[in-house]
Amino acid sequence: MIKVGIVGGTGYTGVELLRLLARHPQVELSAITSRADAGTRVDAMFPSLRGYVNLSFAHPEQADLAGCDVVFFATPNGIAMQQTRSLLDAGVKVIDLAADFRIKDIATWEKWYGMTHACPELVGEAVYGLPEINRAAIKSARLIANPGCYPTAVQLGFLPLLEAGLVDASGLIADAKSGVSGAGRKAEIGTLLAEAADSFKAYGVPGHRHLPEIRQGLARVAGGDVGLTFVPHLTPMIRGIHATLYARIKTDADLQSLFEQRYAAEPFVDVLPAGSHPETRSVRGANTCRIAVHRPQGGDTVVVLSVIDNLVKGAAGQAVHNMNIMFGLPETTALEVVPLLP
Amino acid sequence: MIKVGIVGGTGYTGVELLRLLARHPQVELSAITSRADAGTRVDAMFPSLRGYVNLSFAHPEQADLAGCDVVFFATPNGIAMQQTRSLLDAGVKVIDLAADFRIKDIATWEKWYGMTHACPELVGEAVYGLPEINRAAIKSARLIANPGCYPTAVQLGFLPLLEAGLVDASGLIADAKSGVSGAGRKAEIGTLLAEAADSFKAYGVPGHRHLPEIRQGLARVAGGDVGLTFVPHLTPMIRGIHATLYARIKTDADLQSLFEQRYAAEPFVDVLPAGSHPETRSVRGANTCRIAVHRPQGGDTVVVLSVIDNLVKGAAGQAVHNMNIMFGLPETTALEVVPLLP
Amino acid sequence: MIKVGIVGGTGYTGVELLRLLARHPQVELSAITSRADAGTRVDAMFPSLRGYVNLSFAHPEQADLAGCDVVFFATPNGIAMQQTRSLLDAGVKVIDLAADFRIKDIATWEKWYGMTHACPELVGEAVYGLPEINRAAIKSARLIANPGCYPTAVQLGFLPLLEAGLVDASGLIADAKSGVSGAGRKAEIGTLLAEAADSFKAYGVPGHRHLPEIRQGLARVAGGDVGLTFVPHLTPMIRGIHATLYARIKTDADLQSLFEQRYAAEPFVDVLPAGSHPETRSVRGANTCRIAVHRPQGGDTVVVLSVIDNLVKGAAGQAVHNMNIMFGLPETTALEVVPLLP
Amino acid sequence: MIKVGIVGGTGYTGVELLRLLARHPQVELSAITSRADAGTRVDAMFPSLRGYVNLSFAHPEQADLAGCDVVFFATPNGIAMQQTRSLLDAGVKVIDLAADFRIKDIATWEKWYGMTHACPELVGEAVYGLPEINRAAIKSARLIANPGCYPTAVQLGFLPLLEAGLVDASGLIADAKSGVSGAGRKAEIGTLLAEAADSFKAYGVPGHRHLPEIRQGLARVAGGDVGLTFVPHLTPMIRGIHATLYARIKTDADLQSLFEQRYAAEPFVDVLPAGSHPETRSVRGANTCRIAVHRPQGGDTVVVLSVIDNLVKGAAGQAVHNMNIMFGLPETTALEVVPLLP
Repeated sequence: MIKVGIVGGTGYTGVELLRLLARHPQVELSAITSRADAGTRVDAMFPSLRGYVNLSFAHPEQADLAGCDVVFFATPNGIAMQQTRSLLDAGVKVIDLAADFRIKDIATWEKWYGMTHACPELVGEAVYGLPEINRAAIKSARLIANPGCYPTAVQLGFLPLLEAGLVDASGLIADAKSGVSGAGRKAEIGTLLAEAADSFKAYGVPGHRHLPEIRQGLARVAGGDVGLTFVPHLTPMIRGIHATLYARIKTDADLQSLFEQRYAAEPFVDVLPAGSHPETRSVRGANTCRIAVHRPQGGDTVVVLSVIDNLVKGAAGQAVHNMNIMFGLPETTALEVVPLLP
Repeated sequence: MIKVGIVGGTGYTGVELLRLLARHPQVELSAITSRADAGTRVDAMFPSLRGYVNLSFAHPEQADLAGCDVVFFATPNGIAMQQTRSLLDAGVKVIDLAADFRIKDIATWEKWYGMTHACPELVGEAVYGLPEINRAAIKSARLIANPGCYPTAVQLGFLPLLEAGLVDASGLIADAKSGVSGAGRKAEIGTLLAEAADSFKAYGVPGHRHLPEIRQGLARVAGGDVGLTFVPHLTPMIRGIHATLYARIKTDADLQSLFEQRYAAEPFVDVLPAGSHPETRSVRGANTCRIAVHRPQGGDTVVVLSVIDNLVKGAAGQAVHNMNIMFGLPETTALEVVPLLP
Repeated sequence: MIKVGIVGGTGYTGVELLRLLARHPQVELSAITSRADAGTRVDAMFPSLRGYVNLSFAHPEQADLAGCDVVFFATPNGIAMQQTRSLLDAGVKVIDLAADFRIKDIATWEKWYGMTHACPELVGEAVYGLPEINRAAIKSARLIANPGCYPTAVQLGFLPLLEAGLVDASGLIADAKSGVSGAGRKAEIGTLLAEAADSFKAYGVPGHRHLPEIRQGLARVAGGDVGLTFVPHLTPMIRGIHATLYARIKTDADLQSLFEQRYAAEPFVDVLPAGSHPETRSVRGANTCRIAVHRPQGGDTVVVLSVIDNLVKGAAGQAVHNMNIMFGLPETTALEVVPLLP
Repeated sequence: MIKVGIVGGTGYTGVELLRLLARHPQVELSAITSRADAGTRVDAMFPSLRGYVNLSFAHPEQADLAGCDVVFFATPNGIAMQQTRSLLDAGVKVIDLAADFRIKDIATWEKWYGMTHACPELVGEAVYGLPEINRAAIKSARLIANPGCYPTAVQLGFLPLLEAGLVDASGLIADAKSGVSGAGRKAEIGTLLAEAADSFKAYGVPGHRHLPEIRQGLARVAGGDVGLTFVPHLTPMIRGIHATLYARIKTDADLQSLFEQRYAAEPFVDVLPAGSHPETRSVRGANTCRIAVHRPQGGDTVVVLSVIDNLVKGAAGQAVHNMNIMFGLPETTALEVVPLLP
């Protein structure tokens, strides 16, 4: 059994890790921490876990994280970087669901996240945990930077086009829409039901933290800098991201077959039949990214529709997928959850 | 492997049966019918099932239902009663998720459902599939009348009080609230998002078909007629029923402990700690009924809060539970799905 | 023109007062205060008011409230009682939308609200601003205790029955459901969209602050103490309260006509035709209470359905109605807003 | 008083016309028709109108439409074109809220709408009722083609850029999101709450009927053909459209001031301060289009955010605006409705 610790288990990615790991046949949940809620039973805060998780939140200083095989950080940005060095030294693998290790260029990271990096020397070692690109490196990694939610949906949608060099990489557009859980389980006015329901808005148009992460990922597959306009929106639903991606085609190709072949062996990317429009609910609760590719009116603009559950493929599910790879387990272990529809 | 057939698989209870049965280790889905959508792949209609269900809808006349071990009817009322006789004769067990076999008194059934019963002689044989009351009879049944959604939530909430004879059974009140999926996957104006979202209403106050079903069930445990006022409401959510139950206490008792003891051995009824308020989302996607019992200000009115997922414990999950019992399987097989929260 | 001041204009009742008063032909909005947001333009916080409200929030100490004709308190409980004495002394009328002056019994108030009352001597003078009961007293009042949202919906529903002495006042049940805006514009986890959407729950079953307010009001019309069980619920919508009321009939009567006659002259209470089920959206944005009365299956239980918009008839609209009465204006001035449906 | 007739009053644009016209001081509602609901009181179908509309639906053949001064068609496509000729001949002005007269090229219209046009000779005369472009022509028009909802939001967003010739008109992108009421008040499975809530999807990517309408409008202001990719999405809310528009900048300019100056005199277009992100709820129920213009990271892509209420500025409100212009009334008559927020 893999002994698992979770740091910061009271947020949405935390409870989602618990939902998935509680049914993982190779996992023993051995510690879950919360500074504010130490002593509280996990299932008192999340009654959905009654009967599945028999733990209480532990104070971070008192949890035996060093005795775990792997520790997930489901914390705000800036926490994992404080503790990763000592965990790695103790032989513990680390999967950070926050952004501390995602951006290779330290200056860029520090500018967008507004803090000084606590362990820049580990950033180089960290493996960006998008299995569809980095499977081999993940297998042997000690430290995983689990991708952001928008970056997962956007990168998987652009990937085949950029790898094949078919589109003008200087004018990419990603118009992305997220459910409100993407903002986290934090007391804030903007995400109250009475504020965010029955309304729709863009936010962060001048610049969003996921922009440099997406740009870095796309540049890597494009083999050079990309020009990307990224506009995130808040949509009145709980879970789900829908990315609508636009690019100008340079070279003709059978786009449907390009996508199908690129992802044929991927257990968690599902290319829909030509002409489809994926709904976010079709992946609700599941670690799947569903993609459709269109070329409206046969013009030179390709439109890719990419949907994920932001808390699963965009966070906790992808983290478990990474863990499975790191520990040599079948990749789909504990992740064969049928989406909840309706 | 148990060969399973589903009649009428295009509604919400149908897709929910598929979600659960697709992961059932002892089940082989062998036929699913739909008159209107014969020939359509199931996962073309419900992309959430891609990779899990590799079937197309078959025309009812062409499906080999007689070759199944058990057939679920996920049809409108009045269909199962046409076909049950011949299936039983062919040695097939039948679980009807509609109302055809729920009411023992034929005249009452015909009045509330507005049609003549096609096989009144089978109504007596049919076992009302509420395992918390009828486990033994279910075990040996050929024909199960799977309870309605409201009746499940309301009966489980009143049960301990009536069995113990603690309350005045002549003045029971059940104020119940349902998500919109309870109305089924039918094209109707009243349940459009633009009609039913951001609004709340009661309906069926003069009389609702679940009233005689609940009354029959409560009368059985009370050992005599009960007086029940039942008011259903439509609430702007997809899934979930919340029943708020009121009764006048005749005899003092430790209500918390009464409920805990009554359901101690039940895998799918969860009595919450004293003072709790269950949320419907705490059972989203799961076959669980969570119950809290209150006695506000120590007065003589007991208030029971009972929540279920109307499509699971209120329909498809309970049906699978019944199947597990009928076939001697562990009762929780395929039903250990952690609720999806948030 | 009536010079109006609003204390605490950044909450939902504040913005709702602004929405209504901005179109009031006899009102000049002269000051609106907010400690936290002093200096911010009102329409920067609430862009819906662009073009209608040309004011900035003022610091409470700097606003000339004493120069107003009337001041509305749209503040948390416990603020109005600090400032009312001096405003009244300055000849300013006061309408408190919070609970400071609603409960006549000081000890009861202090118990439920957990603080010492700052001006108990004014509580006796304050007029409970439910025009359907207190019109004459409101006309000559200096100080109005504007009713709570639940108390408005519940009292208007029970009123005709209790005035006529037709029901057993010892066993009243009020099962009430509220949209999330009832919790106010406060950063709290429980009312986040990701927590409160697609879910339903009861809360405050052991006791809610509106219980003593409702009891006091009902006792007054019943001519003696009443027994009331009050269970509030949170429903996933923005606005609206639906109260489902239950009482045991003692004396037969034509209930439909009783309700119609009681409210025939009331501009803001609408008794629906027999057999109706009011939807909360039918009063969205309007100062109307719509009521239907039922007697299911001709039994001895009467069921009243009463809906209001919690922010209008349950708060700001009723406050403007009170102001209109106090200043001798036509009662419907600025309140003839057609509900927004869908 | 202007005598007004409404053909097809049972849909969302119909009830919205009634909401606005009921409070119009110069309007007398004299007839409203519905084939299916003839004889039904309008306020029985829409209780929100109780006290405001004292009419019953009339059979189309029995209503005295020829005696009206103006008739609104709030009908499905293909109805207005059958009746407009005779109404015009009778001296009645016509405002069609459907698409019959929007597209000047008859072949294009017939291709996208799948029917033969019944009065192609009137299409040339019809004035496209976007007051921000066509005010003068509207003033003297007999027949108005009221713009579609998406076309209104998209055109108003691109207009200043194209008029000024600042952007590459060959590569415009309009990523638009609509609330579900845009699909109309029709019994369809896809827009049920249980299907469309808590989910998000694109639709019509291969081609949507509003594409040729938008292209025609943009071409007119651009002075030549435009290349437009238009992707509509369904978002789980009742009302509102959010268009996110992308264009490549050819010539530098102060975009904020460009937009402010273009719309300075327009009563129903509100350019927000630089850096803003309009929410659809900020125009809920109002005839306003709010626009913000961004240039992320100072790059060469301009992003315009444009929001309207699809039923008001996108349909009924704009129709009333057109009527006001046609009859020489102050343009804002009956349209000064403060948006409902929250």
